[in-house]
Amino acid sequence: MPDRETIDAVRDDLAAIDDRIERGTALNCGDRVADLADGELLEDDRTVGETVERLRADYERFRRENDLDEVVVVNVASTEPPVDDPERYDSRDAFEAAVADDDRDLPASALYAYAALAEGHPYANFTPSAGSSLGGLRGLAAAEGVPHMGNDGKTGESLVKAALGPMFAGRNLRVRSWEGHNILGNTDGRVLEDEANKAGKVESKGDILDGILPDVGHNRVRIDYAPSLSDWKTAWDYVHFEGFLGTEMTLQFTWEGSDSALAAPLVLDLVRLLAEADRRGEGGLQTHLASFFKAPVGVDEHGLSRQFDMLDEYVDARVRGGDPPRPPSAE
Amino acid sequence: MPDRETIDAVRDDLAAIDDRIERGTALNCGDRVADLADGELLEDDRTVGETVERLRADYERFRRENDLDEVVVVNVASTEPPVDDPERYDSRDAFEAAVADDDRDLPASALYAYAALAEGHPYANFTPSAGSSLGGLRGLAAAEGVPHMGNDGKTGESLVKAALGPMFAGRNLRVRSWEGHNILGNTDGRVLEDEANKAGKVESKGDILDGILPDVGHNRVRIDYAPSLSDWKTAWDYVHFEGFLGTEMTLQFTWEGSDSALAAPLVLDLVRLLAEADRRGEGGLQTHLASFFKAPVGVDEHGLSRQFDMLDEYVDARVRGGDPPRPPSAE
Amino acid sequence: MPDRETIDAVRDDLAAIDDRIERGTALNCGDRVADLADGELLEDDRTVGETVERLRADYERFRRENDLDEVVVVNVASTEPPVDDPERYDSRDAFEAAVADDDRDLPASALYAYAALAEGHPYANFTPSAGSSLGGLRGLAAAEGVPHMGNDGKTGESLVKAALGPMFAGRNLRVRSWEGHNILGNTDGRVLEDEANKAGKVESKGDILDGILPDVGHNRVRIDYAPSLSDWKTAWDYVHFEGFLGTEMTLQFTWEGSDSALAAPLVLDLVRLLAEADRRGEGGLQTHLASFFKAPVGVDEHGLSRQFDMLDEYVDARVRGGDPPRPPSAE
Amino acid sequence: MPDRETIDAVRDDLAAIDDRIERGTALNCGDRVADLADGELLEDDRTVGETVERLRADYERFRRENDLDEVVVVNVASTEPPVDDPERYDSRDAFEAAVADDDRDLPASALYAYAALAEGHPYANFTPSAGSSLGGLRGLAAAEGVPHMGNDGKTGESLVKAALGPMFAGRNLRVRSWEGHNILGNTDGRVLEDEANKAGKVESKGDILDGILPDVGHNRVRIDYAPSLSDWKTAWDYVHFEGFLGTEMTLQFTWEGSDSALAAPLVLDLVRLLAEADRRGEGGLQTHLASFFKAPVGVDEHGLSRQFDMLDEYVDARVRGGDPPRPPSAE
Repeated sequence: MPDRETIDAVRDDLAAIDDRIERGTALNCGDRVADLADGELLEDDRTVGETVERLRADYERFRRENDLDEVVVVNVASTEPPVDDPERYDSRDAFEAAVADDDRDLPASALYAYAALAEGHPYANFTPSAGSSLGGLRGLAAAEGVPHMGNDGKTGESLVKAALGPMFAGRNLRVRSWEGHNILGNTDGRVLEDEANKAGKVESKGDILDGILPDVGHNRVRIDYAPSLSDWKTAWDYVHFEGFLGTEMTLQFTWEGSDSALAAPLVLDLVRLLAEADRRGEGGLQTHLASFFKAPVGVDEHGLSRQFDMLDEYVDARVRGGDPPRPPSAE
Repeated sequence: MPDRETIDAVRDDLAAIDDRIERGTALNCGDRVADLADGELLEDDRTVGETVERLRADYERFRRENDLDEVVVVNVASTEPPVDDPERYDSRDAFEAAVADDDRDLPASALYAYAALAEGHPYANFTPSAGSSLGGLRGLAAAEGVPHMGNDGKTGESLVKAALGPMFAGRNLRVRSWEGHNILGNTDGRVLEDEANKAGKVESKGDILDGILPDVGHNRVRIDYAPSLSDWKTAWDYVHFEGFLGTEMTLQFTWEGSDSALAAPLVLDLVRLLAEADRRGEGGLQTHLASFFKAPVGVDEHGLSRQFDMLDEYVDARVRGGDPPRPPSAE
Repeated sequence: MPDRETIDAVRDDLAAIDDRIERGTALNCGDRVADLADGELLEDDRTVGETVERLRADYERFRRENDLDEVVVVNVASTEPPVDDPERYDSRDAFEAAVADDDRDLPASALYAYAALAEGHPYANFTPSAGSSLGGLRGLAAAEGVPHMGNDGKTGESLVKAALGPMFAGRNLRVRSWEGHNILGNTDGRVLEDEANKAGKVESKGDILDGILPDVGHNRVRIDYAPSLSDWKTAWDYVHFEGFLGTEMTLQFTWEGSDSALAAPLVLDLVRLLAEADRRGEGGLQTHLASFFKAPVGVDEHGLSRQFDMLDEYVDARVRGGDPPRPPSAE
Repeated sequence: MPDRETIDAVRDDLAAIDDRIERGTALNCGDRVADLADGELLEDDRTVGETVERLRADYERFRRENDLDEVVVVNVASTEPPVDDPERYDSRDAFEAAVADDDRDLPASALYAYAALAEGHPYANFTPSAGSSLGGLRGLAAAEGVPHMGNDGKTGESLVKAALGPMFAGRNLRVRSWEGHNILGNTDGRVLEDEANKAGKVESKGDILDGILPDVGHNRVRIDYAPSLSDWKTAWDYVHFEGFLGTEMTLQFTWEGSDSALAAPLVLDLVRLLAEADRRGEGGLQTHLASFFKAPVGVDEHGLSRQFDMLDEYVDARVRGGDPPRPPSAE
């Protein structure tokens, strides 16, 4: 947690932000979120199309009132339940028709993403919710040249998994069970107590290993709400693996991190990098940002170091004018 | 541990190897090894030059009696105390003069390495002892075109460190303390109870982090002998790091591995790769083998994934005839 | 795991036991057990009264064929789903009427227990299933003077909880969260994947802390099936507690035990102690055996050391003929 | 750590205490303490007798200036190196002769303890230093009826050991290795980097297990200084034990505690309990305080729950006027 001096120093800024918070939408965010919102924000009195118009107007007012040249939209809301049959929104036309037809299966995250992309604002999805990853929104972003990327910020346990997974793969140590157990105490944890919301999160976390270790055996992730931890998230992972002559061995780790302090610098860097891509006219999926995400859209590489290399190479190419990637150093 | 069926299946081969074991040398291997060897093998009755001649004759007899085309020498003996002033052996001439002058500061590992390289046998140093890393021996290997590499097999705790270190570096999470504690129960553990022998090991283990995290704070490695663990080695590492706004967080891990089952496949692969390099006429330091070692001689890169890439690129270039390294995969 | 020598030494005995295994009943053992039993053992073709008669006959034949003076019955079957409204079986009359009326809500464990007690055989319930803990069976055992005790063998994680809990209580360190996560790979684990079966187990494990730490905050136990662990059970517990001036601190532990090797000696000792009580004519609940159980019936004391004292005092009083210095707290 | 509000609330009291701190003595506190004290406090210009007189005068002035009825002295200084041949101070006469003869082997902790007891002030030794445990001082305390107790506050890792040890003993699970590793970042840690100072601490910590598990195998405790942890002390303990049929299993725990927040309430309770004993005229060793100490002087019982019972029984007897049902085992 930041100490009181730090909080005091930004108190006025925080208060000012308070005035800029708009009434949002919680359409299809799950029962738990509906409870937390006291049943409001469910758009009962408004069509989906009207909601989208309202979000677009909110973005524009925010831009104008703060006299900004550009706005980057980042989704850091709690995890939504997964969308059923996402392929029905696979084209821009299909998505826009659904909005026009008041299709009430569309989740809030996709409406926010659509509103952003339609306004030309770069967009990042820091959650496992649908966001801009629906086919129709990816098509829109590519066609209009708006940079975007997701899904699900890789802040804690999954970061460690992405670092450790390639070690097992590279040494041919077969992982027979990888059991991960997370406890956290903030509102995210409270929302994830709902099995429907949890489903999206657990899938996104599990995918990392499947991407790195194709023959992983048992691979399970648990997330539990433990209120006393407040903003802290503790993960215990137990890895049972097999080496030479079938010898069984184990690795376990415990990660104790502040969820917000881990997410904040990633969000700041994403905003900077998306804004830079926008200035350079580089629209569509920003795959070089894979290292920021648990389930990077359009990227097969889940190993952390290679993902870092992708980012380094992107930055180097722009800064140095296109020199080749740095070769491994050796005498 | 391999089960009884496996051991039964190789019992005859193991018995046959028993006959090929030669009386070695324990010169400058430290008091603990001298004790374990009942005070023998200290070469009191023989000059250093005579010892070298005997080792060369042992290699040649082994080759001849087993009707081999080629022999690869691997040092898997217990850790020696570090050599004082290793730079006095920095040239081939200086090293050979020391042998000729019966310089009794030369450690056993360097004599074995010298005997191997002088006979044209590829050599790997799987320990933190001096082995072939003295300047004079590196010069000899380069001049004579004999492939070699070291030091210190990266089997357990240090493997995990090399996988995790780049995660902290890539996310700018400053490591304030990294404390590692190892317990093991085999003869290696017994030898490492001696502070002099331990010194070399601890330095080699600590260097990994220094190579990856230049501003690491406290960085200590402990190794303790716990006889009941027999061949198992358990490591607990505690990492205290600092993120956004100075937020302090921790990662800890416990690794439980069978030392021999982890080392054996690395030794087999090293032998194959060194023999292959020898057949191709690629002499000198084999830096693409960095991923096998805690303190890879002549290599600055300590990140595990990049070291794996170095090996992949070497193999790909030879197999595929020189295609460039695999680019990160993205849509 | 016992090594092959040990298994070879008892191979003939194990084979002989194979012949004595009878077809049992799986009434109300849950869907998962029904699946494992291929849908058999559900007593579709037999009344509850007939099942009880068959179990009594099985016990008697076992006693006669093995020429035994006495038989002790121990329930080590997989966990059943909890009984709804157990108070309807609170008197012996009610229980026996239910048997006579073919009440198909009665679970297998209670039928085995009833058959044992009715035959005068001492009984131990090593599981969290109902067993002999229903009021009607406790009444029967007391009236007929048959010794019995349960529930749920305290073998692993819960043993550690019972040892650590009094430390927090005695030092007034308030536990704000105690999260326990168990993974195991045997048939027990497979059965516990079913939420209904798991319910009974998790409750029994959670009760220990509630008994020791009346103001414990969040107290959750998870049990997951990880097939690769086979008979091993690994538990990770995370304790978040508060000390002087609200200072927040943590304790976490990882227990790795062989479920069978931990249970076997407890079962042997229970059999010996129940047989001894029977010989002495000490019927009813054997509360001095509390240390063997997660949820000792009729005992409020959950602290492990005090439970050990209860056993020591019982044994001392009988061996030394002295009075127990402190009576166990019991109903 | 207490939050800023708490510290603000006691700021004036803390400032007032600052004025009451006296120049102490660091005689035989080891090189590290001498360094920290810039070489002062070594009593080069003063005899041991003069130092004792000064300490007595300091106590008296403190009492008088604060208008107190009674003063309790508690040693919370950093650990001293162990005293050689402590039996030379086994009688009060021998000790007082040593003081009179300016015996410069006497450590500071014993001088403080002597000064306290001679003044009639109750005394607690919260460290593993000699303090009042020398035979001569115990004799003095008994003869003069001054209550005292020690040694070494049982705050963290050793508290957990005392809770867990009886579990292994009571279940006949033979501990083959118990390896404990502590890291801490305060001045205590800095002093314990010195091998001489560490010797006393490690011995006191190791004794707990020896007292509970007579056949424990390997039993080692390490303490390392990790500055970034500041007042926090993290312990990792690895227990390798053997159960039924020689099955090898493990328990490991990590304790993360604030050293001061754990010690402070114990010091407060010790002061209250010693003052109460003094008012009741109960002098000499206060063995019912065993639960507060790692190495309770005059007490063989190391199990934590039994030590708690000793305290409960003492308090109950005094409050309720009843006789203690079980006398504490003590000299």
